[in-house]
Amino acid sequence: MSARTQKFRLSYGDCDTVGIAYFAIYYPWMERTYSSWLYDNGIRAGELTEEFGIIVVGVHSQATYVRPARVFDELTCEVVLEKLGNSSYTLGFEFRRDGELVAHGTMSFACRTPDFAKTPVPPRIRELLESLPASGAAPLDQRK
Amino acid sequence: MSARTQKFRLSYGDCDTVGIAYFAIYYPWMERTYSSWLYDNGIRAGELTEEFGIIVVGVHSQATYVRPARVFDELTCEVVLEKLGNSSYTLGFEFRRDGELVAHGTMSFACRTPDFAKTPVPPRIRELLESLPASGAAPLDQRK
Amino acid sequence: MSARTQKFRLSYGDCDTVGIAYFAIYYPWMERTYSSWLYDNGIRAGELTEEFGIIVVGVHSQATYVRPARVFDELTCEVVLEKLGNSSYTLGFEFRRDGELVAHGTMSFACRTPDFAKTPVPPRIRELLESLPASGAAPLDQRK
Amino acid sequence: MSARTQKFRLSYGDCDTVGIAYFAIYYPWMERTYSSWLYDNGIRAGELTEEFGIIVVGVHSQATYVRPARVFDELTCEVVLEKLGNSSYTLGFEFRRDGELVAHGTMSFACRTPDFAKTPVPPRIRELLESLPASGAAPLDQRK
Repeated sequence: MSARTQKFRLSYGDCDTVGIAYFAIYYPWMERTYSSWLYDNGIRAGELTEEFGIIVVGVHSQATYVRPARVFDELTCEVVLEKLGNSSYTLGFEFRRDGELVAHGTMSFACRTPDFAKTPVPPRIRELLESLPASGAAPLDQRK
Repeated sequence: MSARTQKFRLSYGDCDTVGIAYFAIYYPWMERTYSSWLYDNGIRAGELTEEFGIIVVGVHSQATYVRPARVFDELTCEVVLEKLGNSSYTLGFEFRRDGELVAHGTMSFACRTPDFAKTPVPPRIRELLESLPASGAAPLDQRK
Repeated sequence: MSARTQKFRLSYGDCDTVGIAYFAIYYPWMERTYSSWLYDNGIRAGELTEEFGIIVVGVHSQATYVRPARVFDELTCEVVLEKLGNSSYTLGFEFRRDGELVAHGTMSFACRTPDFAKTPVPPRIRELLESLPASGAAPLDQRK
Repeated sequence: MSARTQKFRLSYGDCDTVGIAYFAIYYPWMERTYSSWLYDNGIRAGELTEEFGIIVVGVHSQATYVRPARVFDELTCEVVLEKLGNSSYTLGFEFRRDGELVAHGTMSFACRTPDFAKTPVPPRIRELLESLPASGAAPLDQRK
């Protein structure tokens, strides 16, 4: 099994003058969690064209801030499946502190041929995505 | 009048290994554009509690990626009004290259009393928000 | 004992278009390692004035790049002591991949009174700094 | 002539909980200033191997913090020449607020052949570097 979760402690560089986590810091942790999970499963997110002959385009990202996080809070970021379509998919990212949801993000991707027509999600990626727990489906301690 | 637009040229630090702008770099530019515009209008985004006695909570952010941007592309980020509610508001951010939309982002805020009840957007902020052009309402060259 | 080491895997956001770790990414990891180590020892780096009545000013930082690091490389950042003066100190940060040095950084601080005269490093901080291994003093596997 | 100077206003994302500019934010501005200046002179810093057949390795970076900068301060970052050797060079970066030095940084590069032997700085780059003012050589208002 591979790691779906990144763990980190907020530092001063993550927080703004008001002392809470800056709204933008969640995004690189989503990418780190996603890329690292894919990598643990033998796929390099940056080489999907070489590997599958398709282009996977990032089309959308978002974050909902549920509770403020502060310097030295220990957060986990866990990747889940939000939505799996024919030629696109959305990953979810649950940021928790002691099991409590702090923020929830998503990253959406679309699969395209080299000449930019829609194309199905490659079976290997589809299979991996289907192995993810659904967003909000299970309590954190039953997942790992 | 005050500046609603930030202009910047993408550098290597903004781009990932594939050579296009990293998806997360748009967010700090949204905040920079928003905070700087407020500041030019005499308001410090980080001191709204001191100034208005309310808490303005960032509740959501998102970005839609329309066209890839590459190192050395010159982008503008322009703040517009997406939505103005009674106790909340959403700002829009249009990233353009030579007038062409590259990415579109939003940041949403909710106004709360110190004990966290909903409270109306302060008149001074409401007035400022209403001075913004509506999202997508006018071509870039007619705005400035 | 407390953790002197942070561990992380490089992601796409850490790397530039050439595919190697962007030169600036090492700095926030130095601060994260330093602040986290202090915090594990009961000291909040951002509250030294409240705690000790002095101002600790960051006066210098640097990084020497020894070997290129690439996306998905797993790095450790370990804090060591570079130099301890009367009213100033320099921390060292050794970034390693599989024990091999990838980069070496430092952060230097000066202690000042509220009216900005030199003042000795507080005993509690001095004691902690002296508990650190000296820079380059011992092979990685004998430290932890 | 080409721009050697970047201008920016500090935003909340640039500052830490203490309200002053985070020590690491100066580094990406150095790179942005350097890469942008090279680009204005027809050279892409990321394609030196393609263009000149050599590898230009970043070997060191540093910053000296002279005065604290705060949110909404307007800073300029100006590239100057620190040192030009046979096979290596160091650029200087002067961060100023209203002409007053806030921070001073450097980035050092070494030129190597594809098999990693020392090789002279290519004439085109040497010529460009020699066109830069020397570090600290002239007051800001006489440079531009």
